[in-house]
Amino acid sequence: MPSRFPLPPGSMIGVIGGGQLGRMLALAAGRLGFDVTILEPEPDSPASRVAAHTLVARYEDPEALQALAACDVITFEFENVPAAVVERLETLGALAAPGRLPLATAQDRVSEKEFFREQGIATADFAAIAGAADIASALPRLGQRALLKTRREGYDGKGQTWVEGIADAQAAFARIGGKPAILEAAVPFVREMSVIAARGRSGEIACYPLGENRHEAGVLRTTLAPARVSDATREQAIAIATRTLEALDYVGVMGVELFELEGGDLLVNEFAPRVHNSGHWTQDGCEVDQFEQHIRAVAGWPLGKTNALAEVEMTNLLGAEADDWRTLAADPSARVWLYGKREARAGRKMGHVNRLRPLEG
Amino acid sequence: MPSRFPLPPGSMIGVIGGGQLGRMLALAAGRLGFDVTILEPEPDSPASRVAAHTLVARYEDPEALQALAACDVITFEFENVPAAVVERLETLGALAAPGRLPLATAQDRVSEKEFFREQGIATADFAAIAGAADIASALPRLGQRALLKTRREGYDGKGQTWVEGIADAQAAFARIGGKPAILEAAVPFVREMSVIAARGRSGEIACYPLGENRHEAGVLRTTLAPARVSDATREQAIAIATRTLEALDYVGVMGVELFELEGGDLLVNEFAPRVHNSGHWTQDGCEVDQFEQHIRAVAGWPLGKTNALAEVEMTNLLGAEADDWRTLAADPSARVWLYGKREARAGRKMGHVNRLRPLEG
Repeated sequence: MPSRFPLPPGSMIGVIGGGQLGRMLALAAGRLGFDVTILEPEPDSPASRVAAHTLVARYEDPEALQALAACDVITFEFENVPAAVVERLETLGALAAPGRLPLATAQDRVSEKEFFREQGIATADFAAIAGAADIASALPRLGQRALLKTRREGYDGKGQTWVEGIADAQAAFARIGGKPAILEAAVPFVREMSVIAARGRSGEIACYPLGENRHEAGVLRTTLAPARVSDATREQAIAIATRTLEALDYVGVMGVELFELEGGDLLVNEFAPRVHNSGHWTQDGCEVDQFEQHIRAVAGWPLGKTNALAEVEMTNLLGAEADDWRTLAADPSARVWLYGKREARAGRKMGHVNRLRPLEG
Repeated sequence: MPSRFPLPPGSMIGVIGGGQLGRMLALAAGRLGFDVTILEPEPDSPASRVAAHTLVARYEDPEALQALAACDVITFEFENVPAAVVERLETLGALAAPGRLPLATAQDRVSEKEFFREQGIATADFAAIAGAADIASALPRLGQRALLKTRREGYDGKGQTWVEGIADAQAAFARIGGKPAILEAAVPFVREMSVIAARGRSGEIACYPLGENRHEAGVLRTTLAPARVSDATREQAIAIATRTLEALDYVGVMGVELFELEGGDLLVNEFAPRVHNSGHWTQDGCEVDQFEQHIRAVAGWPLGKTNALAEVEMTNLLGAEADDWRTLAADPSARVWLYGKREARAGRKMGHVNRLRPLEG
């Protein structure tokens, strides 16, 4: 049977999830002549309004999955797609990228950390927490101050809290309903960084320059890229991304969040099996941005160039900050992206701005 | 009554025409958080597949125009929109940009040339041809070799032919059914150029650097931009565009086609009251491309920057040339745009490629 890849223009790409990442994936697919079908439970989603078709249905809806399976390839804008959905799509003969292994690994913070350890990639010390007794035994080893997170379904700092001492940790664990959790040791990092990396269907890998990230209340606030790092640090980041992509037989774009320690060594925090907020700078800083790169990878096209053409500061527009669109529209230094969300709820990602400066030397 | 402009993100922009220009306008609108409604008689059009809504109907269809009139602003991807359509939309309280005057002027090649002459802008010598007698009186003045064009509805070299001598010209006139025509004197140009210019709702004007165009069989083949021209030539082009935009009280992006004569003086060939094929280089060569610029203008946003970040060679992919997408996808020097057209008919514009080089000092 001849491979269906590379997909010809006019092919249909399915995207599970109708938020801003799905929207920007659809815009990138449109550039290359592809059509997009969105699966999303909410009507009038940001992605649906730039896509050829939308299935408004729960992710598990059997009829919607049947329809989605007719797409030439299917991808995701978020990592918490139920494993049963991917299994069902595969049963229907559909091809999903990235596949089940990266999704399953990323969905459970303990599996994710164990995966990195197995690959020889350094992470913060951690312990799986199934009950209060686990906290009592783990916390002394991790240090009195540690981060308690649910094992599953957190993002943007949701489902995580700093704890100090056993009593505090056990109380926090009770507050999350005693759900399976992970305790992570505090990391004395000097910077938060990320690398956006892609792997194509033929196994080729391309990494963008590192970004330096600043978070507020667990939510990404700014990315500065290319981050000024030593060659050794950059090589470490590329090695981490490469090993991760290869071990997961990954196809598509991945965001790998990193902690830089004093001296330049890196620990990995987590990976997102999808395009990533910290990669939005590539939209105005690179010829081929992370969204086109992801479409290229899942469509079986060769990957594009990843070098930076400019230094970019990406700033998220959260909640009411997007109400300031008049000022941003008039600011020639601001390259604006707005997501078309109807309601500017507090803290909600409504858009972002890329500000460009010439590259140094 | 407060102005409806600038339009807030989430506003609906109507676009008449569902081809590649409409598609790229919709992609640009999507970036800024706008929604798009396409009006287009053909189902499954390139633009419809990246737009929030599509009205599949004749341009004159009363119900479709009623629906389209609900858009916050309406624009066009081609200039041959019947004047009655714009009138109907205005009667329905809708706002069209550019308006009736630029459309009416561009739709009739004699009106267009007369308009330029009234503005003191040099054009080729010409004569309106209503009957065979007009040819006999005009041709000796214009030179024996001249270009016969229908007054209305031509594009990409359609409806035009070179004629030599009165008998030949009269035969050609008979072949176009004796339709109202124009005879244009041959211009001894050294280069074909264009300038993509924009005017915002507040009257501000921004011009991109000039492009140097090469046509084949009347169809644009390549644009090289920024064209290497003298300061005097560039200033002439900007003066021509500025006068044209202001005289027509124009809002939006316009393409102005120019002939460069020996010595650097410019004659105007024609203007297109819309985004223009010779402006596609801006998509990869400028921060704000002509599509975003047009959306900004019609939405009442301030215009964006127009400086070139790179030297770009844009090449159209005509007909079966787009079948070569595998090669183009693998070429790191090629920034590919494909229009999602289902059929690669001979000579049809299927996509284009931008190739970037660093700007010269």
